[in-house]
Amino acid sequence: MATHKLLLLPGDGIGPEVMGEVKRLIDWLNSAGIAKFETDTGLVGGSAYDAHKVSISEGDMAKALAADAIIFGAVGGPKWDAVPYEVRPEAGLLRLRKDLALFANLRPAVCYPALAEASSLKREAVEGLDIMIVRELTGGVYFGEPKTITDLGNGQKRAVDTQVYDTYEIERIGRVAFELARKRKNKVTSMEKRNVMKSGVLWNEVMTQVHKREYSDVTLEHQLADSGGMMLVKWPKQFDVIVTDNLFGDMLSDIAAMLTGSLGMLPSASLGEVDVKSKKRKALYEPVHGSAPDIAGQGLANPIAMISSFGMALRYSFDMGALADKVDAAIAAVLASGLRTADIKSEGTTAASTTQMGEAILKEL
Amino acid sequence: MATHKLLLLPGDGIGPEVMGEVKRLIDWLNSAGIAKFETDTGLVGGSAYDAHKVSISEGDMAKALAADAIIFGAVGGPKWDAVPYEVRPEAGLLRLRKDLALFANLRPAVCYPALAEASSLKREAVEGLDIMIVRELTGGVYFGEPKTITDLGNGQKRAVDTQVYDTYEIERIGRVAFELARKRKNKVTSMEKRNVMKSGVLWNEVMTQVHKREYSDVTLEHQLADSGGMMLVKWPKQFDVIVTDNLFGDMLSDIAAMLTGSLGMLPSASLGEVDVKSKKRKALYEPVHGSAPDIAGQGLANPIAMISSFGMALRYSFDMGALADKVDAAIAAVLASGLRTADIKSEGTTAASTTQMGEAILKEL
Ligand SMILES: CC(C)[C@H](C(=O)O)[C@@H](O)C(=O)O
Ligand SMILES: CC(C)[C@H](C(=O)O)[C@@H](O)C(=O)O
Repeated sequence: MATHKLLLLPGDGIGPEVMGEVKRLIDWLNSAGIAKFETDTGLVGGSAYDAHKVSISEGDMAKALAADAIIFGAVGGPKWDAVPYEVRPEAGLLRLRKDLALFANLRPAVCYPALAEASSLKREAVEGLDIMIVRELTGGVYFGEPKTITDLGNGQKRAVDTQVYDTYEIERIGRVAFELARKRKNKVTSMEKRNVMKSGVLWNEVMTQVHKREYSDVTLEHQLADSGGMMLVKWPKQFDVIVTDNLFGDMLSDIAAMLTGSLGMLPSASLGEVDVKSKKRKALYEPVHGSAPDIAGQGLANPIAMISSFGMALRYSFDMGALADKVDAAIAAVLASGLRTADIKSEGTTAASTTQMGEAILKEL
Repeated sequence: MATHKLLLLPGDGIGPEVMGEVKRLIDWLNSAGIAKFETDTGLVGGSAYDAHKVSISEGDMAKALAADAIIFGAVGGPKWDAVPYEVRPEAGLLRLRKDLALFANLRPAVCYPALAEASSLKREAVEGLDIMIVRELTGGVYFGEPKTITDLGNGQKRAVDTQVYDTYEIERIGRVAFELARKRKNKVTSMEKRNVMKSGVLWNEVMTQVHKREYSDVTLEHQLADSGGMMLVKWPKQFDVIVTDNLFGDMLSDIAAMLTGSLGMLPSASLGEVDVKSKKRKALYEPVHGSAPDIAGQGLANPIAMISSFGMALRYSFDMGALADKVDAAIAAVLASGLRTADIKSEGTTAASTTQMGEAILKEL
């Protein structure tokens, strides 16, 4: 059996708690002889700042580059609101994405049947919802230069951020979306603001070309990002795969996640290019939810998004699709049994702490 | 009685139809001696392109600069998808905003009680919703330079858009938001991405200063734009006034509009600075909905957003708040009577065409 090297980066807030439940799962997989994971742990975000005055140390970056996959908790919190911009908690996550070239962020927005009521949307609008948002993650306004604040004198400053996209960046994220669509409902909706942004014009043009050249069997639709956002709220089930840039993806995937009523439940995968020789790809898996500092350390956090992110790692990094399916089924079964953490509790369900939820899922497995 | 000069720019798609109902209202106000409006009409968007190969002619720009207010329909449609970027329909609207320095875009998101069912959100989440989105309209990535597509050779192109904000631009839009909040529920939520964008850092800093210096009686909250979008979907009633930049404002205001179930009903105002001498300000009023080319020319369009935008003109440009209230009340009464255009029809209501709806509102007045 191959040994897989995992780097666990629990981060801040509820990160360490939810990561604890993934550790429990990994330990069991190892001891039951189902898989062989070698884990190491590092610091990222505010906890790295507290220890080393950086958002991730060079040592942990080296570990990240050497790992087969990174399992990431969450970063940030009011405690670090005043730290310098360059070492704010988020900088650690952004550096991991950039230096590992994790350009493809997959964010499924799935409505768990048992939780349809938790959505602010009407049941018929979200029940059975299953869309995949593919967000470009290493380009756009997140990393473009110049990115500066200049003092103009007279009490005036000027802030500049730069959105930059090259053809190849759009092509490769397009391919990820089309490939996923082929295994799903065969439809891709590309979203940009071509009526205002030159990057939108190029995005639209390149998606159209890639589609025509390599994926004409898939349905491709184009939508302006603002009306795309509206359509997500109005009738999300019209979508299958949505592909969009870094900033629009940030907004649209959060909104899609909230629609499902399952925010504390949704995983994400950030993937690099497949290496031609080793057939491996760099990858980072993290829950869509944040560090929720307000409930940290109280056993209130929902570990499902984190466990489900580990499930995505099984699927996308280790070719253990069958085991990933089992993890998903265990989560669904535990939910169906009525067990709920505080964020998803409703009448007639049974309250569970972070640990109780993790244990129940493991038992189901 | 003072004479007010209006420039009507119906634009494309359903623009001319809904503008027809505003004309009907203006004619009646004039003939009943309630007000004195002098109207002129111009071309903008695709219709200007068809006539002059530009998205707005210099003659119509001159008229726009000379008018007391512009009443704007909608622009765009697939017919003009292939026209050069510089003369695409939207360019006419963007030039009006920029050249008239209409930096403050007010977009109320109100849920009409009679229409709460039309929302995809649960009734309790949207009933009674009344928020005001204040969007910066002449800065940011919409107008920043460079804004280019460069050919890099080898089949590669590079697209660049630039987000730029100066202190004074953030200050003045902040003041608009705080002033509005004072007349409402006294709360402003500022949204940006300070964890990723330098413009977000400056935005946050300047809002905090303006608040401290001039509006400490108003509650100010800061939210990251992505989680702000989530909160809008989860529980929109937590907001009163939201202030945000041009691009986030574009996304968030559309989403807020869709939440209400009243998209075809929502107006907007785009305002310039008040001139110290004349006490006047440049202004453009337009519905939030677009040109809806698919239903154009069939009498299906809902004229309420357009009429309501004219109502905002009465309020913000002509100091006729009482008359504006009457327009709002007439719209509410007609809706309560059960009359509905196709976009908002539901069981037990009476179908109305664009004209029938306009006539009913006028009759109510
Ligand atoms: C934490 C933050 C930098 C990050 C982002 O903006 O990408 C987060 O919102 C996300 O969506 O992963
Ligand atoms: C038509 C388009 C240029 C415009 C914008 O992006 O500002 C529209 O979406 C709006 O919100 O007024």
